[in-house]
Amino acid sequence: MIDVGGKPATRRRAVARGRVALPEHVRGRIAAGTLPKGDVLAAARLAGIMAAKRTPDIVPLCHPLALTMVEVDPVLDDHGVTVTAAAETTAQTGVEMEALTAVAAAALTVYDMTKGLDPNSAIEEIFLVEKSGGKSGDWRREEA
Amino acid sequence: MIDVGGKPATRRRAVARGRVALPEHVRGRIAAGTLPKGDVLAAARLAGIMAAKRTPDIVPLCHPLALTMVEVDPVLDDHGVTVTAAAETTAQTGVEMEALTAVAAAALTVYDMTKGLDPNSAIEEIFLVEKSGGKSGDWRREEA
Amino acid sequence: MIDVGGKPATRRRAVARGRVALPEHVRGRIAAGTLPKGDVLAAARLAGIMAAKRTPDIVPLCHPLALTMVEVDPVLDDHGVTVTAAAETTAQTGVEMEALTAVAAAALTVYDMTKGLDPNSAIEEIFLVEKSGGKSGDWRREEA
Amino acid sequence: MIDVGGKPATRRRAVARGRVALPEHVRGRIAAGTLPKGDVLAAARLAGIMAAKRTPDIVPLCHPLALTMVEVDPVLDDHGVTVTAAAETTAQTGVEMEALTAVAAAALTVYDMTKGLDPNSAIEEIFLVEKSGGKSGDWRREEA
Amino acid sequence: MIDVGGKPATRRRAVARGRVALPEHVRGRIAAGTLPKGDVLAAARLAGIMAAKRTPDIVPLCHPLALTMVEVDPVLDDHGVTVTAAAETTAQTGVEMEALTAVAAAALTVYDMTKGLDPNSAIEEIFLVEKSGGKSGDWRREEA
Amino acid sequence: MIDVGGKPATRRRAVARGRVALPEHVRGRIAAGTLPKGDVLAAARLAGIMAAKRTPDIVPLCHPLALTMVEVDPVLDDHGVTVTAAAETTAQTGVEMEALTAVAAAALTVYDMTKGLDPNSAIEEIFLVEKSGGKSGDWRREEA
Repeated sequence: MIDVGGKPATRRRAVARGRVALPEHVRGRIAAGTLPKGDVLAAARLAGIMAAKRTPDIVPLCHPLALTMVEVDPVLDDHGVTVTAAAETTAQTGVEMEALTAVAAAALTVYDMTKGLDPNSAIEEIFLVEKSGGKSGDWRREEA
Repeated sequence: MIDVGGKPATRRRAVARGRVALPEHVRGRIAAGTLPKGDVLAAARLAGIMAAKRTPDIVPLCHPLALTMVEVDPVLDDHGVTVTAAAETTAQTGVEMEALTAVAAAALTVYDMTKGLDPNSAIEEIFLVEKSGGKSGDWRREEA
Repeated sequence: MIDVGGKPATRRRAVARGRVALPEHVRGRIAAGTLPKGDVLAAARLAGIMAAKRTPDIVPLCHPLALTMVEVDPVLDDHGVTVTAAAETTAQTGVEMEALTAVAAAALTVYDMTKGLDPNSAIEEIFLVEKSGGKSGDWRREEA
Repeated sequence: MIDVGGKPATRRRAVARGRVALPEHVRGRIAAGTLPKGDVLAAARLAGIMAAKRTPDIVPLCHPLALTMVEVDPVLDDHGVTVTAAAETTAQTGVEMEALTAVAAAALTVYDMTKGLDPNSAIEEIFLVEKSGGKSGDWRREEA
Repeated sequence: MIDVGGKPATRRRAVARGRVALPEHVRGRIAAGTLPKGDVLAAARLAGIMAAKRTPDIVPLCHPLALTMVEVDPVLDDHGVTVTAAAETTAQTGVEMEALTAVAAAALTVYDMTKGLDPNSAIEEIFLVEKSGGKSGDWRREEA
Repeated sequence: MIDVGGKPATRRRAVARGRVALPEHVRGRIAAGTLPKGDVLAAARLAGIMAAKRTPDIVPLCHPLALTMVEVDPVLDDHGVTVTAAAETTAQTGVEMEALTAVAAAALTVYDMTKGLDPNSAIEEIFLVEKSGGKSGDWRREEA
């Protein structure tokens, strides 16, 4: 775990995003609220928030951080569920991994709660959207 | 957490896979063993194994299971790092989420240890490859 | 942690219940779905399920168990929120603490998500309702 | 997890209390130190301290905090065991949930270690006593 | 995590031991019950029991196990504190690491609670005493 | 958990060390990289880093801290494996237990990954080497 002790504590923010592709019949069940395992969007949101707090236990070299905000927003769209997560702190290192871990846990939860209907679903992409704060300045992913 | 108490305990196995796309200069550093944060493949492997054991803490509706085997194999190829994970148990429910969670944690670890060189990298896909054991019979993902 | 190794593994079930007393204006906000922190019943349900799985980490002398079912049901009534939780396993020891821990975590979550509106709310009672399985036979709480 | 990033870090304190009602014969065993599972007050105290540190894992929307003090005091009285817990930090948000979670875990531990003698015992009340620090000012529970 | 799925589940037991060397004035404070941080033997015992349950989180390649018994016994002697821990399960793999992890956590706790009086104390040895159950037969450490 | 709220947050560092004695044939296997369970030094290093972050879960009275650096260095020598760990933070209390817990987890991991070849190996000593920062001033262990 690299030394960040000499860096100033600054306000940090990171946003990550990911998608779970789901077939039409599963999206219909989510929209209708008739999944046998319950409200998948509410569960994915909480799973993401809780996993963000566990990031140092999941990603070996991550520093433990006092997160000041975590927001996880899973949205049903015509492709599946898109999860966007934001994390913030005031610290000596960034919160990219917290945002990404939140997305990963939320996406895994979507898969878990729909796999009985279709195990072919896949998590299609998890990536960092933007980060701010810190010495290296603000960064935003280049659109493809 | 659905009731699996009436199901017989059978031997279960699941295999999942995922990929982290990495640019050539990062792949070169991994191959040369010159990443500033150390051996990314060894770290990803352990992160995956440890996360598989934490699956019930990460995915809210997963049953706790006594895993009998977890194998996580991150491989550097000409696209980035491909992670394959297998999990096994003898239980009343399957281990798909354990294999997928192992892949997700290993992929997050690869990103964490290379993001200083290129934050544009993305986890490109995480999906179940196959599962066996259980009432629903063996299943193998259809190739695209 | 007492020795249960000589006991047969039998099917166990326990049900626990608890209440959080809430003033009318808070109950109204829950009913209307307008709490600033979101859907308190969905969050309490998931918090209870996840805490049941963490019981051996929370209650020092509890044995780790492979739970086969956890069900947490927080209901808004004219007094506040009543939480009922059931846990099941096939094991050498019972699941009373898992059901009680689920109720406690769900009740704490209800308090956390409403305390901004009224910190005077209290968790009013947490108790075991019934248990079955095991050598000591079935047990049901005497009604007051 | 709501955004507290714009709030100043101030010194915070919260005190919570709860009771486990126990029949006379169980209270006698605690007083005599002859419980089969050992010293229940010492175990409840440590369980409370450790659970306070796990609060963000138990209560989904709680912020992780660097607690500077946790004190858990389980007292045997003529009704059962009364647990008082205090938590302190210097942070952007309060420690009410840490104090309440400590009380809940201590109370669950008292129940766990006495339930073999009397499963009818109940956790009778868990409530916040006072908090100080933070924008909303000091607060003290109104006595009934 | 190696594959133990083909092995029969048998009753397993392991015993481990360790010592923390403490100077006379610290041993005197423990004996008199006047340590500023409280009852070190009670705390070490609980820390050991709880750590045994966390072994798969602490030792990367350990299998998760449903422990049926954990006993941790810290004894004050004329050298310091000697901790003996026993763990048992019925499983496809042994519980050596659980017994050793219990000893390590208990010993760390003894050091933590006495280090204010003397930071020169050391954990002097942690070793496996015996194990039984499993294909390789019973084993007992050769005395030096 | 004692009150450190009135102390100033200062930069803290602690270094701990420990040894696992291993017979020659096991040391040879480590040197040759032919252990059946894989690269023991890499695994011990990660286990130590991750355990340092879990210290407040393992040692009951430890304060949770935002560690700014953890370094774990297991070295194969002609006696076995010597593990040195350093931890740093800016906080109101020290990081001695974090450094010691890292050493203990790394040493347990070395034992776990070699015990199949020789269960007689022992963790031979775990001790604090030095600490700095904090009111009590710098401290360095007296050499024997």
